[in-house]
This record gives sequence, structure tokens and C-alpha cells, in this order.
Amino acid sequence: MDREKTISPDEFDKIKHHIQDIRIAMLTTQASTGALRSRPMATHQLDPDGTMWFFTRADSEKVTHIRQQPAIALGFSDLQAQVSVTTAGQAEIVNDQAKVNALWNESMLDWFPEGKDDPNIVLLRITTLDGECWE
Amino acid sequence: MDREKTISPDEFDKIKHHIQDIRIAMLTTQASTGALRSRPMATHQLDPDGTMWFFTRADSEKVTHIRQQPAIALGFSDLQAQVSVTTAGQAEIVNDQAKVNALWNESMLDWFPEGKDDPNIVLLRITTLDGECWE
Repeated sequence: MDREKTISPDEFDKIKHHIQDIRIAMLTTQASTGALRSRPMATHQLDPDGTMWFFTRADSEKVTHIRQQPAIALGFSDLQAQVSVTTAGQAEIVNDQAKVNALWNESMLDWFPEGKDDPNIVLLRITTLDGECWE
Repeated sequence: MDREKTISPDEFDKIKHHIQDIRIAMLTTQASTGALRSRPMATHQLDPDGTMWFFTRADSEKVTHIRQQPAIALGFSDLQAQVSVTTAGQAEIVNDQAKVNALWNESMLDWFPEGKDDPNIVLLRITTLDGECWE
């Protein structure tokens, strides 16, 4: 990370609370050209240690980016509540059908109409290295 | 840019409409370590050609990042309306008191209590190279 920052347990709890609440993240990755690209993603699960799980397609641009450069940034904003949370972390592409099965719910059919056995499903596992609350 | 994409005039108008409406951007920059970092920013002005103007502090982390690596990404999300816009572009630090004076309004006093003559004010001028709407 570009700066040393210790998140206090209270701050970390607040960050996790807002992530659970807002859920829609802007995920930014870097292309091989150096260009940065953001896209909205629904946070599928947030673990107590701050690890986040997302569903995506193996053939998506973000997967290509992450394989080359795993450093990513996430931003969560709730305009009405005037609160934002930002995190920085490392993303990893996870091919694990048991984990897909464990995280799957029927609402995912909107994105993956073929169901949880669609071979194009991969998981993004994002480790949180830093985070900040903006209220 | 990492892909060639022609934004149609209609799509571009839609992107600009949503930016005007949402206004709060997640701006992502890259540190010299390679880490990506996002933070919320209020879009101060959007020009008809897609150029965006932001106020910031000369001593802020984002200014350091942009001087090293001008490629940035922006994300705008309205949770309630379920609409997001993302753009990619090039940022430039602008030191121009006449432009500060032209863009200044009293609401900026919340961020710059010393007023528009505060020597720490700089402008970010962000040229839009690509954009996408997510509805």
C-alpha cells in the first residue's frame, strides 16, 4: 500500500456496516495499457475479516485486468445518506464450484440464467488492505 | 485506452445527464506503488465536451498520484435510481486563479474556509476518453 494506516476496530466495523448496507461497489481495475476502468458490482458476501466475494464471468474484462494486476480499489456511495466508503485491496480469481454453490442464491439467475453450474462463472475474492469512511 | 469504443451522441448525452444529476464521483487514481485508491469527489462543472472540473488541495494525495500517472477512472452511482455511470480519462492539475474565480461559489467555503484565494486550491481538469451507462 502507498501509505501505512491502521484502521481502528471501530472504524473497521463502521466500514463493514456501510458496505453491507450499500452493497453496490464501484470496482476499479487497471488494463495492461495503464488505463483505469470502473464498473458497478453487487457485493455478494462480506466476511468478518473484510474479505469480499463477487460473482463475475470468466471472459469479462475485469478478470483479464486482475490476472495482470491484482491491486484494485472499491468505492461505495449512498447519495441520500451522504456516506461513502472506499477500500483498497488485492483481487484473486477463484474457480471453486463448492464455494459458488455455497454463495449461490436464486437472485443470481438474473446474471447467470444457466444457473450455478454455468462454466463461465468465476468468483472474485477481494482482500481488504485499507479502508476509509466519508460521512 | 484499452479498448476502442465509440460512444454514440445519444449515449454521451445520457452519460452527461446522469453525471449532472448524481454529481458525486468516485475518483480512482494510482499510487507510485501500483496501489489504486478511490475517494468521493463533488463534480464542480461538466463541460459539453465531457470535460469535468473538480476543486482539490495542492497537497492532497490525489494530486501526487495524478502528477505521476494521469490515467484515472470515475464512477457515479445512484442506488435509489439504480443507475451508474463510469468514465475513464486523463486528469491534469490546473493552477489558474481566473478559472478558480469563474468556478467558485459560496458552497466551496465548506471545503476551503479561506475562500477562493487560498493558495492551496488547485483544479482537476479531467478529459473524458470513454464512458458507459449501467441502468
